[in-house]
Amino acid sequence: MPLGVAHLFCMIMERASLFILSLFFAVSCSQYQPTWDSLDKRPLPEWYDEAKIGIFLHWGVFSVPSFGGGDYAEWFWYNWKGSKKAPTVAFMEKNYPPDFTYPDFAPMFKAELFDPNKWASLLQNSGAKYVVLTSKHLEGFTNWPSKASWNWNSVDTGPHRDLVNDLAAAIRNSTDIYFGLYYCMFELLNPIYIEERANGFNTQVYPKEVTLPQVVEIVNAYKPDIIWSDGEWEAPDTYWNSTEFLAWVYNESPVKDHVIVNDRWGKGSRCTHGGFFNCGDHYNPRTLQKHKWENAFSMDKTSWGYRRDAVLSDYYTIEEILEEVVSTVSCGGNALINIGPTHDGRIVPVFEKRLAQLGAWLKINGEAIYSSKPWTHQNDSSTGNVWYTTSYNAVHVYAIALEWPDDNILKLGSVKASSGSTATMLGYGKVNFETSSNGVVQVSFPNLPLDTPLMWAWVIIRFDGVSSY
Amino acid sequence: MPLGVAHLFCMIMERASLFILSLFFAVSCSQYQPTWDSLDKRPLPEWYDEAKIGIFLHWGVFSVPSFGGGDYAEWFWYNWKGSKKAPTVAFMEKNYPPDFTYPDFAPMFKAELFDPNKWASLLQNSGAKYVVLTSKHLEGFTNWPSKASWNWNSVDTGPHRDLVNDLAAAIRNSTDIYFGLYYCMFELLNPIYIEERANGFNTQVYPKEVTLPQVVEIVNAYKPDIIWSDGEWEAPDTYWNSTEFLAWVYNESPVKDHVIVNDRWGKGSRCTHGGFFNCGDHYNPRTLQKHKWENAFSMDKTSWGYRRDAVLSDYYTIEEILEEVVSTVSCGGNALINIGPTHDGRIVPVFEKRLAQLGAWLKINGEAIYSSKPWTHQNDSSTGNVWYTTSYNAVHVYAIALEWPDDNILKLGSVKASSGSTATMLGYGKVNFETSSNGVVQVSFPNLPLDTPLMWAWVIIRFDGVSSY
Amino acid sequence: MPLGVAHLFCMIMERASLFILSLFFAVSCSQYQPTWDSLDKRPLPEWYDEAKIGIFLHWGVFSVPSFGGGDYAEWFWYNWKGSKKAPTVAFMEKNYPPDFTYPDFAPMFKAELFDPNKWASLLQNSGAKYVVLTSKHLEGFTNWPSKASWNWNSVDTGPHRDLVNDLAAAIRNSTDIYFGLYYCMFELLNPIYIEERANGFNTQVYPKEVTLPQVVEIVNAYKPDIIWSDGEWEAPDTYWNSTEFLAWVYNESPVKDHVIVNDRWGKGSRCTHGGFFNCGDHYNPRTLQKHKWENAFSMDKTSWGYRRDAVLSDYYTIEEILEEVVSTVSCGGNALINIGPTHDGRIVPVFEKRLAQLGAWLKINGEAIYSSKPWTHQNDSSTGNVWYTTSYNAVHVYAIALEWPDDNILKLGSVKASSGSTATMLGYGKVNFETSSNGVVQVSFPNLPLDTPLMWAWVIIRFDGVSSY
Amino acid sequence: MPLGVAHLFCMIMERASLFILSLFFAVSCSQYQPTWDSLDKRPLPEWYDEAKIGIFLHWGVFSVPSFGGGDYAEWFWYNWKGSKKAPTVAFMEKNYPPDFTYPDFAPMFKAELFDPNKWASLLQNSGAKYVVLTSKHLEGFTNWPSKASWNWNSVDTGPHRDLVNDLAAAIRNSTDIYFGLYYCMFELLNPIYIEERANGFNTQVYPKEVTLPQVVEIVNAYKPDIIWSDGEWEAPDTYWNSTEFLAWVYNESPVKDHVIVNDRWGKGSRCTHGGFFNCGDHYNPRTLQKHKWENAFSMDKTSWGYRRDAVLSDYYTIEEILEEVVSTVSCGGNALINIGPTHDGRIVPVFEKRLAQLGAWLKINGEAIYSSKPWTHQNDSSTGNVWYTTSYNAVHVYAIALEWPDDNILKLGSVKASSGSTATMLGYGKVNFETSSNGVVQVSFPNLPLDTPLMWAWVIIRFDGVSSY
Repeated sequence: MPLGVAHLFCMIMERASLFILSLFFAVSCSQYQPTWDSLDKRPLPEWYDEAKIGIFLHWGVFSVPSFGGGDYAEWFWYNWKGSKKAPTVAFMEKNYPPDFTYPDFAPMFKAELFDPNKWASLLQNSGAKYVVLTSKHLEGFTNWPSKASWNWNSVDTGPHRDLVNDLAAAIRNSTDIYFGLYYCMFELLNPIYIEERANGFNTQVYPKEVTLPQVVEIVNAYKPDIIWSDGEWEAPDTYWNSTEFLAWVYNESPVKDHVIVNDRWGKGSRCTHGGFFNCGDHYNPRTLQKHKWENAFSMDKTSWGYRRDAVLSDYYTIEEILEEVVSTVSCGGNALINIGPTHDGRIVPVFEKRLAQLGAWLKINGEAIYSSKPWTHQNDSSTGNVWYTTSYNAVHVYAIALEWPDDNILKLGSVKASSGSTATMLGYGKVNFETSSNGVVQVSFPNLPLDTPLMWAWVIIRFDGVSSY
Repeated sequence: MPLGVAHLFCMIMERASLFILSLFFAVSCSQYQPTWDSLDKRPLPEWYDEAKIGIFLHWGVFSVPSFGGGDYAEWFWYNWKGSKKAPTVAFMEKNYPPDFTYPDFAPMFKAELFDPNKWASLLQNSGAKYVVLTSKHLEGFTNWPSKASWNWNSVDTGPHRDLVNDLAAAIRNSTDIYFGLYYCMFELLNPIYIEERANGFNTQVYPKEVTLPQVVEIVNAYKPDIIWSDGEWEAPDTYWNSTEFLAWVYNESPVKDHVIVNDRWGKGSRCTHGGFFNCGDHYNPRTLQKHKWENAFSMDKTSWGYRRDAVLSDYYTIEEILEEVVSTVSCGGNALINIGPTHDGRIVPVFEKRLAQLGAWLKINGEAIYSSKPWTHQNDSSTGNVWYTTSYNAVHVYAIALEWPDDNILKLGSVKASSGSTATMLGYGKVNFETSSNGVVQVSFPNLPLDTPLMWAWVIIRFDGVSSY
Repeated sequence: MPLGVAHLFCMIMERASLFILSLFFAVSCSQYQPTWDSLDKRPLPEWYDEAKIGIFLHWGVFSVPSFGGGDYAEWFWYNWKGSKKAPTVAFMEKNYPPDFTYPDFAPMFKAELFDPNKWASLLQNSGAKYVVLTSKHLEGFTNWPSKASWNWNSVDTGPHRDLVNDLAAAIRNSTDIYFGLYYCMFELLNPIYIEERANGFNTQVYPKEVTLPQVVEIVNAYKPDIIWSDGEWEAPDTYWNSTEFLAWVYNESPVKDHVIVNDRWGKGSRCTHGGFFNCGDHYNPRTLQKHKWENAFSMDKTSWGYRRDAVLSDYYTIEEILEEVVSTVSCGGNALINIGPTHDGRIVPVFEKRLAQLGAWLKINGEAIYSSKPWTHQNDSSTGNVWYTTSYNAVHVYAIALEWPDDNILKLGSVKASSGSTATMLGYGKVNFETSSNGVVQVSFPNLPLDTPLMWAWVIIRFDGVSSY
Repeated sequence: MPLGVAHLFCMIMERASLFILSLFFAVSCSQYQPTWDSLDKRPLPEWYDEAKIGIFLHWGVFSVPSFGGGDYAEWFWYNWKGSKKAPTVAFMEKNYPPDFTYPDFAPMFKAELFDPNKWASLLQNSGAKYVVLTSKHLEGFTNWPSKASWNWNSVDTGPHRDLVNDLAAAIRNSTDIYFGLYYCMFELLNPIYIEERANGFNTQVYPKEVTLPQVVEIVNAYKPDIIWSDGEWEAPDTYWNSTEFLAWVYNESPVKDHVIVNDRWGKGSRCTHGGFFNCGDHYNPRTLQKHKWENAFSMDKTSWGYRRDAVLSDYYTIEEILEEVVSTVSCGGNALINIGPTHDGRIVPVFEKRLAQLGAWLKINGEAIYSSKPWTHQNDSSTGNVWYTTSYNAVHVYAIALEWPDDNILKLGSVKASSGSTATMLGYGKVNFETSSNGVVQVSFPNLPLDTPLMWAWVIIRFDGVSSY
C-alpha cells in the first residue's frame, strides 16, 4: 500500500475503532512494523530491569479440583481428558458422578474469601516490584468478563466478579507494584483450536475469534504493564498474528509506552523474539546473558496452580528461593516467583510465609538486588555459592554468599581490594577483611546470635572501593 | 463475478469445503441466488403440507429453574436479568445464593431420565408427522456439541450427551416422523450481540462467529427436515446473512432436496419470505391463506418451556387443542403443538395424556386431516364451530363439528347434497340426513353411549357425492 | 396398684406432664385400660364413617430421587441399600458419586414451591373429607421438627419448614377437611432398630427413644384427627407399647374425643385391633364387612411416593378410581386415595386432574356416597358392576352403574319397585323405568349429548319408594 | 443393695452385656465406686506423664465453612444461630441461600484426600507421644457411625467413612503414639438438651439417649488411651452420670488398665476431679502443680478448628510453641498442641511445618522433655526465660534458654556447680562454664554458624553433677 493510502487507512481505522481488522492487513500506521526485525528493535522499558522481582499468580477453574497427582494442577483438565493420567482419572472416578465434566467445576470456583487488598498487602510486603496474574489459562476460562468467552468467565459463573479488574485496582491503589497479565494462547480442549491444529494451522478461525479479541480486550481494559504470553508453541506466529498484535501494542495501544512483553509468540520465538526472554519454564542459565531474561519458577516445585495434595517438602524453602533469585539477578535476569491462590480466594500461609521471608530478606539486602547490574564476575573464583552484583552506578560491588563460610571466613578470589576498600555486611555493619598473599580477600564474618534476622543467604557483603580481577 | 470465474470459485470452494466463506461472497454456485426473489421461488416440499401435525419441543437450561412466574419459562434468564420481572427476581432471591448466575444452572440440566426411544414412541402415538426440537434457544446453550459454543452446550456440561443426535436417531430408527430443528438466532444476553445491536448491527462478528457456523453445523450433522428459525426480528436479514445461508441450504447442503424452512430470517421477513409462514406465535387467522402457513402454539398457554408452576387450568384441554388443529388445517395451515420436557428428561403425564388423546382422535379422524386440502368453504354458513376440509383428490368433504348439536341434529348450510350423497360419521358409520326446504342439510347424530371413544370434536361427517353452495 | 394409689399417681403425672413415663407403668388413669379388650370397646367417632373419602399424601426425602424402578419410590433407601434392587442400584451408580448416601439427598428436599393453601384448595375441590399426610416414613425423616430426630427432619435440613404444621394450618383455615397423620413405626435402616430386631425385640430402646416420644409430639403439637400407624408388623405391640400409647390417646390426649386410629399396632393387630381396619394396603374385600374399614390405595399403581419414572399408564384412570370408591363405600369402607407430592412441593397436574375429576363426580353424585350406609344388597343380582348404597335415613336407595348399559336399558334385579317408586339419575333428573314380568326393574337411560358432565360411573340412579328382594 | 446381691447383679449384668443399665443403679461391681472419693484415688497410668507432648485434632462438619470471623471456627453453628455473631451471619448471607442450615454442610464434609497413614507419619515426626481426636464436637456430628446419632455421623453422610477407626488403625499400625478421643458432652443446639437445660437438668433424657450410649460405644469400639471430655460445664456431674460412667471405665471397660481421663465431668469438676487436670483451655500456670495437668492450646491462636480466614500472624511461631512446651513441662504439665485438619482431610503445610519443627527440636532436645520431672527450680533466679527440668533418675539437670544470651554468656543463678560438674549443649557438645564469685554459673555459648539446626529455644544445657541452690 502506498504510504499516503496507508495513512488514510490508518486514520479511518482509528476513527472507526476497527483496530482489530488492521491486524489482518498488516498496515503500518506507526513506528513499528509487524515484523520481528522492527519489533525486536524496540528498547525495553527500564522499569522492568530495575524491578528484578515479580510474583506470578496461577488462578482459575483448575483451582477447584486443585489436584496434581504428580502433574501440574493447572493442567488438570488435560491430565484428566487429554493425557489421561492415572491419578487424575482415579481422583475423578472416586469423587464425582460418572458424567461429571470439567466445566461443572466452574460454579464451584467461588473466590468467596478473595480480598484483593489483602493480596496487595502480602505482595507489597514480599518486596516484589511486579505481579503477573493468569488472565486465562489453557482451560480457556477468562478471569475477566471476556466477550469472546461468554459463560466461561469469572463474571458469568463461579466467582461472579471481574478478578483481573479487582486485583489490578487493589494493586494500583495501595502499592507501587507493576501489574502484568499472563495470557495463554492455546486452549487445548477447544474444538476449534483442535480442528485447526489437526489441519496444520492453515486457517485462523480460533485466533481471530478468541485470542486476538481477548488480548485486545485485556490491553484496553486493564492496561497491563506486562503481557506474559504462553501456550504459543504448537503454532507459528503467523497463525497467532503475533507481529501484527505487537505492532498494535507498541504503536497504538494505551500501554504502548511502558508495556513489556515476553518471548512466547509462536513456534521458535522463545529466546529469540519479543521483549524479555523467558525461554523455558524455570529457565536459569547461571551465566551472564546478553538479552534481558526472566526466570519464572514456582514455589511449589511441581505445580503452578494450587495443589491440595502438595506437602511441605514440595515447596521450595526460602533458602532455595533465594538461591534462584540471587543466581538469576547476578546473571542479568529477573525472578518471577509463582504462587497459586485457592479456589476460595486465599493465599495460604505456606505462601504467605515465603513472601514474608522474601520481603524480610529484601528489606535488608534489597540494595544488592533492585536496580542492580551484573558485575564483571557472576561467581567468585575461589568460593562456591557466591554471586556478585553491582550497583546501578557501579560504585558498590555486592558479594552474596549462600552458605555460611567455614570458620567464619569468607574467601573471595574475584574481588581486588585496595587501601580505601571497605566491606559491609548488610544489616550488620562494617566487617573486617584482609587480602592474603595470593590476592584472596578474606572477610571475617561476625559472631551473630542465633536469633538474628540475618537468617538466610548469608550474607551480602557490600564492597566499596574494590575492583575485580 | 463473471459466470466462468464464479463457477471455478464454486468448484474450488466445494473441494476445499470452505462453503462458509462463500456465504460472504454472495457467489451463486447453483440454482438459487441469495436473494428473496430467487429463494422464494423454490417450491415447498410436498411432505410438509401432507404432514399437517407436528410436535414442538422446548428444552434447555431454562428447564432447570422451570419457572414462569407469569412469563415464558424459556425466557427465564431474560425475565430475571433483562426485564427483571418481580416473580422471577423473588424466586431467585428466595432460593439461591446472592451471587448465583444463570450459567450456574447448567450443571443441573442432567437429563438423567431422558429415554429418546420413549419420547419417539409417545410422539408416534400422538399421530404427529413431524417434530421440531429446540437445538438452541435465546440462552445460547446448544443441545449439541457446537464448536462455536464451547463449554456452553449439552455435551460439555449438564446432560453430557448430544441431545439433538440422540433424539434424531430414535425418531428416525423407530418412527416415520420428520425431524426438524428450531434455532434461535439472537442470544439476548450475549455481549457480542448486545454490542452489535447497540451499534445498529453495522458489524457482523456475532453471526459470523456464532449463528452461521452453528446452523451449518446442525444442517451437516443432523440433516434436519425443517429449519425453524427464530429470534431474528431485531436485525435485518443482511445482518444474519440469511439469504446466503438459504441459498447454500437449497443448493448445496445435504438436505437441499427435502428441507423446508420457516419465515423468520430478519426484520420484516415474517409472513413474507422463506418457506412456510409462521408469522407470529400462535398465529391462527381462521381464514384461508394463500401461502402455506403454520400455527405454532403451546399446550401450556403461557409458556413453551416446562413450567413447574403451571397448574391444570394452564394447559389447553384436548377440546381446545382440537379446535386449534381443525381451524388451522381447514384454512390451509399446519399445527405445531408445543410441549416442554423437564430438566431430567421426561415428558410429564399431563403432556403424555394430551398426546395420547390427540393420537386417539387422529386414529379415527385422521383421514380428514392428513393430506387434506382446504375446501370451498372453511366454516359452515349455518352452524358455528363447524370446519371443512376435503380429501386430496376432492372426492370427500369433511365437516368437523366442535360442539355436539342441539337435539342431535347438525344443520349445515354450505353443503349441497344430491341423490347419491352419503354421510358417514368417522368411527361410527353411515348417518342419516335430509335436506330441508331452504337447502340446509340436516344430519342426525346417533345416540351414542357415554363411554364411546368418539369423545371430542364430535364428530367428523364425511360427505361423499356432495357439492358446495 | 390399688385404685386410690393409681389415681394419686395419675394426678401427679398429669401435673408434672410426665405422661410418657406413665406409658411404662401401665397405669389406668381413666376410662380406657391399656388392653385391647378395653381399647377395642371405644366407639368410633361418627365423623369418620360419614366422611367416606380421604386423600393420602406420601412426602419425604424419598421424593428427591423419586425413582421407583419397578418398586415403591418411598422405599428407595431400602431398595438401594437393603434389598439392593438392580434398577435402583444402577440409578445411583449412573448419577451419583460412589460415596453418595441417602442422607445426602436431604438438603435437596427443598419444597421451594410448596404452597399449602394451594394444596388445601385442590384437596377441597376433590370432595375428600379428610387428608392423611406422612409425618414420617420408614426413612425416619420427620416432616416436623422432632426433638427425637435432630438434624433429620424438615426444619433442620431440606425444606427448612414445619411441613406438618403448615399443611395442617392451611387445611384447617380454609377447608372443612379433617387432618390426619401417617406415622411409620419402624425405621428399616436405623441401627438401634436393626439391633433390637436382631435380638428378638427383647429390649425397647428404639420405641422409647424414637417412636413414643414422636407420636406424643405429633399428637400434642398437631392434634391429628386420625393417627394412621404403619411399619408395625415385625414386632409385637408390646414392643411398641401400643396399648399404653392408645390408652393415653383415648384418655388424656388433646384429641381424645374425636381422634380415630387404624389397626396397625403390632404383629397380628391388623384386621383385629384398633380403630378402623386397614388390613393390607389396597384392601378391598368387595363384600360387606362387620367392622369399619378403609381401602387405602394409590393413584400410581406401583408407588405411594411420587415417581418420576411413572408414565400415564401407571396411573389409575378416573373410571378405575371410581370403581374402587364405589365398591368400597357400598361395602362399608372408606376410600383413602394416595397421591405423591414432589420434592419441590407440587401436586403435579396428573394428580390435580384426578382430584378435580373426583370432585366433579362427587359434586353431582356425592349424596350417594357421603354419610351413606350399606344397603341390603351390595351388588345387583342381574347386572354386573352395579353397586348399591342407601341414605343415612334409609329413605333413598342408590344404584351406581359403572358401565353404560347396552341399549340404554339398565336391568336391576335387587330392587323391588312399587307404585310410588321413582327413579332419578343424579345430575339429570327423573328417568323412566318399568318392572318386567320376572320382577326386573328396567331403567331407561336418557340420550345424553357427548359433552355432558355426567361422564363416568354412569350413572347413579336414586330410587325412592323401593324395597329390596 | 447388700453386697451379695450386688455381686449377683453384677454377674448377671455382665453376662447380659447390660452394662449401660448398671450405670443407673450405681452398683459397685468392682474396685472403684461411682464416687469422686473413690475414683480420684485411682493412680494415673505412668505412660501419660512420660509422654509429655500430644497433638490435638479438631475435625468435624465445622471444617466445611471453616470460618472464624474472630471466633472459634468449631463453634460456627453457635456463632451463627446461637450468639449470632455479625461476621458469621454476614458470611452466610453472602454465600448461601436464605434457607441454608448447618446440617446442609454435612454432605460437603467429604474428607476425600484423607490419608490416615500420612497423618500418622506427620504426627510421628512431630515427636508427639499421643494424639487426641475430636470424636464429636458440640455440633453433635460423630466421626464414627454412632447408633445414637443416626444420619448425623461421618459414615451416614459426608466422608462416608469411620474417621475415628481409620485414624486409630493408622496410628496403631505405624507409630508408637497413644490414641485418645475427645468427646463433647453437650450439643448446644440439640433440642432435647436445650429443653433439659431450661428445666434445670432435672431429667436425663439427653445423657441416657445420647452421651452415655456414645461414650460407651467409643470406649468399646476404639479403646482410646485417653478420654478427653468437654462441654460438661453447664450441668452437674449427676446429670451426666459421670461417676457411674468412670467407675465402669475403670472397673469394667476394655481400657480399664491404661486409660487416662481428664477433669471435665460436670459443673465444678475442673481442676478438682478426674484424671489429669485441664482446668481451662490453654491453662498454663507457670508454677509447679501438685496434680498432673495438661496445657491444651491451639497453634491457631483463636481457633481449634481449621479457619480459612487465618493468616500467618494468627499462628504461633515455633518459638512461641516451644515457650509453651518448655514452661509447661518444667512445671509438671503435658502439652496438648492443637491443629485443625481441613474438610477434605488434609493437614495443611503451615501445620506440617510446625509439627516438623517441633519434631526437629525434640530430636535434639527430647531427652530434656520426655520422661523428665520437674526440678527443684522451675525458673532460673538470675536470668529470665530459662526453664529447668531434670531427668527421670535425677542425674541430669536441664536448663532451657528461650533467648540467646547477650554476649553469648548464659548466667544461671539456680544451678550450683562443683568440680565434677559438666555442661553440654544438646546437639552441640560440651560447653565451658565458670562460677562467678557470687555463685552464678556462666555458660559460654559457642559461635554457631547461622545455618545450624539448633535454631530455636536455644539451647538446652544439660548439667551433670550439679546441685541446686
